[in-house]
Amino acid sequence: MPEVYVHIVEGRTVEQKRGLVRDITKAMVEHLHVDPANVMIQIMESSRENKAKGGVLFSER
Amino acid sequence: MPEVYVHIVEGRTVEQKRGLVRDITKAMVEHLHVDPANVMIQIMESSRENKAKGGVLFSER
Amino acid sequence: MPEVYVHIVEGRTVEQKRGLVRDITKAMVEHLHVDPANVMIQIMESSRENKAKGGVLFSER
Amino acid sequence: MPEVYVHIVEGRTVEQKRGLVRDITKAMVEHLHVDPANVMIQIMESSRENKAKGGVLFSER
Amino acid sequence: MPEVYVHIVEGRTVEQKRGLVRDITKAMVEHLHVDPANVMIQIMESSRENKAKGGVLFSER
Amino acid sequence: MPEVYVHIVEGRTVEQKRGLVRDITKAMVEHLHVDPANVMIQIMESSRENKAKGGVLFSER
Repeated sequence: MPEVYVHIVEGRTVEQKRGLVRDITKAMVEHLHVDPANVMIQIMESSRENKAKGGVLFSER
Repeated sequence: MPEVYVHIVEGRTVEQKRGLVRDITKAMVEHLHVDPANVMIQIMESSRENKAKGGVLFSER
Repeated sequence: MPEVYVHIVEGRTVEQKRGLVRDITKAMVEHLHVDPANVMIQIMESSRENKAKGGVLFSER
Repeated sequence: MPEVYVHIVEGRTVEQKRGLVRDITKAMVEHLHVDPANVMIQIMESSRENKAKGGVLFSER
Repeated sequence: MPEVYVHIVEGRTVEQKRGLVRDITKAMVEHLHVDPANVMIQIMESSRENKAKGGVLFSER
Repeated sequence: MPEVYVHIVEGRTVEQKRGLVRDITKAMVEHLHVDPANVMIQIMESSRENKAKGGVLFSER
């Protein structure tokens, strides 16, 4: 309330995730004027075998 | 048809999940008058490192 | 935290939605032991032209 | 690739949306080192009658 | 069971949607060996003001 | 742009996934006239313990 879902391929460090959720939360607060305590962010990690672009799995590109 | 997605942090038992899907299905049938056989529920579990509130990962709260 | 998404075809009354979110929240609290104030539920309504089963749009069934 | 979904209650201006997608994209590029041209963001707006917290619809809070 | 969600910008005809859900269902049946009657597809249409690429809303590209 | 999410129970081979994303991409191009290079497909696999139909977990059916 609001909720943000970030879909990425697996392999990022916790430092990257920490910085990402901090700065997305800032952007939400600045532009939507919401209480930061209410901003929920979920990172949806995918294996390379479960994501495709151009009809080809990432594991085969 | 209908479809329900429940996003939670990982760590619940199968007993909790069993009760949850039973009672959500009951609520769907009672209020929407759908056939229970058509109610699909998916539990989307997240690690504590992939979910944040207030700009901070659950793994660091 | 937790978050629930309910995908239905449009056409339900506000009374149906009111009862549905009340009872799904109860099920979440009973089985997951979460604070009800933290349960977010979003109803994702679809037109009949945007949903299909068996390869056929609901608007044409 | 990556994809971001932002779930909010309807009623924001295009200026707010413009700033939000610009700054979320910046955060994605800075922390994930992705090409900004590949960052897709979708804002999923909900009516107040289709979203609930604490078991109560936003339209009735 | 399985469920497919297709996110597109609004503006397609019902003929396009009809063909799309028919052929995605065929692909699901051929490769996953599921009963076509169980394949649910939902088209999630977005306005051009609610979708962005490269940090810019589609309505402003 | 467009984005497709396919929710299935885990246990398919990479050959099945490869064929599935190839043919869904073809259907998207044929009916929506999009550039195949822009079609993103993500397969969202679920354990049998996290998916239910008719109020019963797949792991208990």
